[in-house]
Amino acid sequence: MSDMFPDIHDTPASEADIRAALRQAADLAARYLATRGEYPVIPNIAPGDVAAALPDAPPEVPETLEAVLGDYRRLIEPNVTHWNHPGFLAYFAITGSTAGVMGETLSAALKSNAMLWKSGPAPTELEERVCDWLRQMVSLPTGFVGHINDTASIATMLALAAARERAFPSIRQDGMSGRTDLPRMTVYASEQAHSSVDKAMVALGLGLAQLRRIPTDDAFRAKPDALREMIAADRAAGMRPIAVVATLGTTSTTSVDPAADMAVVARESGAWLHVDAAYAGPAAISPALRPLMRGWELADSIVLNPHKWMFTPVDCSVTLVRDVETWKRAFSITPEYLRTDVGAATNLMDYGVQLGRRFRALKLWMVIRAYGVSGLRTHIERHCALARELGEWIDGDDRFERVAPTPFSLVCFRALPQDANATATEIDALNERMLARINTDGAVFLSHTKLNGRFTLRVAIGNQHTNRATIENAWTIIRCAYDEVAGA
Amino acid sequence: MSDMFPDIHDTPASEADIRAALRQAADLAARYLATRGEYPVIPNIAPGDVAAALPDAPPEVPETLEAVLGDYRRLIEPNVTHWNHPGFLAYFAITGSTAGVMGETLSAALKSNAMLWKSGPAPTELEERVCDWLRQMVSLPTGFVGHINDTASIATMLALAAARERAFPSIRQDGMSGRTDLPRMTVYASEQAHSSVDKAMVALGLGLAQLRRIPTDDAFRAKPDALREMIAADRAAGMRPIAVVATLGTTSTTSVDPAADMAVVARESGAWLHVDAAYAGPAAISPALRPLMRGWELADSIVLNPHKWMFTPVDCSVTLVRDVETWKRAFSITPEYLRTDVGAATNLMDYGVQLGRRFRALKLWMVIRAYGVSGLRTHIERHCALARELGEWIDGDDRFERVAPTPFSLVCFRALPQDANATATEIDALNERMLARINTDGAVFLSHTKLNGRFTLRVAIGNQHTNRATIENAWTIIRCAYDEVAGA
Repeated sequence: MSDMFPDIHDTPASEADIRAALRQAADLAARYLATRGEYPVIPNIAPGDVAAALPDAPPEVPETLEAVLGDYRRLIEPNVTHWNHPGFLAYFAITGSTAGVMGETLSAALKSNAMLWKSGPAPTELEERVCDWLRQMVSLPTGFVGHINDTASIATMLALAAARERAFPSIRQDGMSGRTDLPRMTVYASEQAHSSVDKAMVALGLGLAQLRRIPTDDAFRAKPDALREMIAADRAAGMRPIAVVATLGTTSTTSVDPAADMAVVARESGAWLHVDAAYAGPAAISPALRPLMRGWELADSIVLNPHKWMFTPVDCSVTLVRDVETWKRAFSITPEYLRTDVGAATNLMDYGVQLGRRFRALKLWMVIRAYGVSGLRTHIERHCALARELGEWIDGDDRFERVAPTPFSLVCFRALPQDANATATEIDALNERMLARINTDGAVFLSHTKLNGRFTLRVAIGNQHTNRATIENAWTIIRCAYDEVAGA
Repeated sequence: MSDMFPDIHDTPASEADIRAALRQAADLAARYLATRGEYPVIPNIAPGDVAAALPDAPPEVPETLEAVLGDYRRLIEPNVTHWNHPGFLAYFAITGSTAGVMGETLSAALKSNAMLWKSGPAPTELEERVCDWLRQMVSLPTGFVGHINDTASIATMLALAAARERAFPSIRQDGMSGRTDLPRMTVYASEQAHSSVDKAMVALGLGLAQLRRIPTDDAFRAKPDALREMIAADRAAGMRPIAVVATLGTTSTTSVDPAADMAVVARESGAWLHVDAAYAGPAAISPALRPLMRGWELADSIVLNPHKWMFTPVDCSVTLVRDVETWKRAFSITPEYLRTDVGAATNLMDYGVQLGRRFRALKLWMVIRAYGVSGLRTHIERHCALARELGEWIDGDDRFERVAPTPFSLVCFRALPQDANATATEIDALNERMLARINTDGAVFLSHTKLNGRFTLRVAIGNQHTNRATIENAWTIIRCAYDEVAGA
């Protein structure tokens, strides 16, 4: 075989040559997955370091497999942040899996684009089926129809667009600007809701100022009474509440909004209820955790991300929608060249902005079958148990305080200074130094948030290979960092 | 090794087990890529056939590799529409490539999410660099900064959002509805522009009615004089033109709008010029084809899709933006938990709605290096030559007429009835029967459009392995279909 990439000419390459090349990628991926814990979680490089090592101009002639894969190993692999590392405890920790990588390999080979049923029959029907599997796994009732988007950000934007469509169907045709017959439209989400709600407000032309932030209780949960009062006040001021977003598992603390109570308020006011369960939704696979989701079955739409806590490579975000017709009406546009003779079939392009639909269902199908529902449940419950344990260690150590409940697998805490008279600013500075020191170690990677304005450390557990030893090690690193930083 | 998927437990699987599993996927992918021409291009199934063969409920316990991959081979692979088939001549024909599949495999293994530089240093810097490579390859000037989106649909939506942001920066905060200080905003795109422009008008709350359709000339190109008149009339009526979309390579016919003339009009009116070159943009890699793009260097934003004509697996859409600050201002929102200490670096999440950013640059980098610029140029020029040749065969056969110019690699034509007195409806019906008959064969897959209201057949050439024999065979099938259908 040649040392060039196969399949770059107009005559097909031999199966042996293609296989040999794909196996080189498979072998590199396998080595990476098996040794993922050996890199520092974050590479020790500065902005521009990678760019400086990349040629300014593209190559005029084909390069060899050896050259490209060599550069991959030398320049790319060591210089990613290792989301697959067991010590990755930042943001929401996530893992790919062998099953997921296999799905992506096959999906890329098929290059399917299931914009229409006709352009991707199996991808369309598999997407519908695996979304329904997920619905069953988290015990949501029939009546929810699922589809896959790239990200929860897009799902939330589509949900608010559907809410707008339901409230004012004329907007699709006539838009919003320059009209005197439309009120201001308001959307309600807690102070802890995800920034994708803000982005959706901007994109849809609703405006950030029309996003009402519901105050939260001491466990960072939206207060339904406050929501009711805000909606009443806005109505009295001539505004039109179109949507309520309940978050089950907020990004900062994984707090759980009271979806059942919020559903009642949303229904009273005719607003669309969108549930953002991007991170925590899969936890409902566990009967023990499922009660936390109480009320989400009353939602108009729910987003859950298998690419977060279900061992599926990014991107894969499942949206479950009750009123599919309104959802589709917000976007469906069929140009002539996409009209088909297959009348009854689902055409996935009708579900959103994107015409092109990548075959993401394949990897999700493979992951669910590889782990089985029981396997997914076991990992999720194990992660939550590890988080509870870490929480107990923190509670038992007077150098630290836990600053939010731990309903799932995230622990929020702060270091306390030795000086009991330290100011809030000094405490924040201590914790910032702690975070920098912890992340320098390379064995773990933590991120931060602000709660009640105060700098807070987060330990997010969600990687499949994060185990008790990882968390013990993280706890050691945290305490060592304290000794170094608080003593300094 | 076990017959289960490796890597499903909390203890890491051995490299040998992971490698063996990934090689099974690699081998299946290789066999598919090497024998892609052996399936009928469209599977002969009806809606529901695949679903009926899939279990209703997810498996409680892990399934074996053998079971899952067996189902893949039996149920999924034969029942996709084979976009990678050399006889796929529908929509825009596209191809994956071994290099692209390798990139996706490695990207899935890394599971990188480059929302921030810090969360993906190499992915962020590689994305910037390969986008700049593409800029150089198509001879666009410096000053355009690139990033990757999933689809051109999203890129076009973001471009119109940026246009809105430039025209009325207050919308970000205050929205559009219930305001008396905003005019109607209008956007201009030709009658032949892509449906993603319509979808963007809906999503952004601008309204379909505010999308002005610029009339086209007899080669389906927007008329700049008409654009100027429409803008003047709208201005006189108190509207505010915010954006002009020029399409270089429209979906129905690959017609080329006069971007240079449209740029002058856009600039006069202060409107954002977005160039949709999703399909044809890569053709500018060829010096012979580059003059067709004249004027696109005056655009504010340009979208080109490597997942169309550059042998890159879906999804990979490159957007080049001149005024990056306005573009980012339309969306950038940084919550506390994503604030980093890396001030100067690019954070890709600032470029659009999606927070999560998949590592798509890897496959594009591998494809460009695998083919070299010369290799990509050769394929693109070869496809255009094949289209010209087919066009000549059609022109030389009085049973057919070509109904649009062939500037790139798409041929639009119609069959003519034997009865010279046939009505337009009868001619349309003849061509619909032709299309059905051609696609039944299984060797090729054509799609259709309507031009001037008339049913039109399209032969789209863009698959790497489509060669002269494929086109000769397609031409034979077309003529046989005529004999069967026109004689009936």
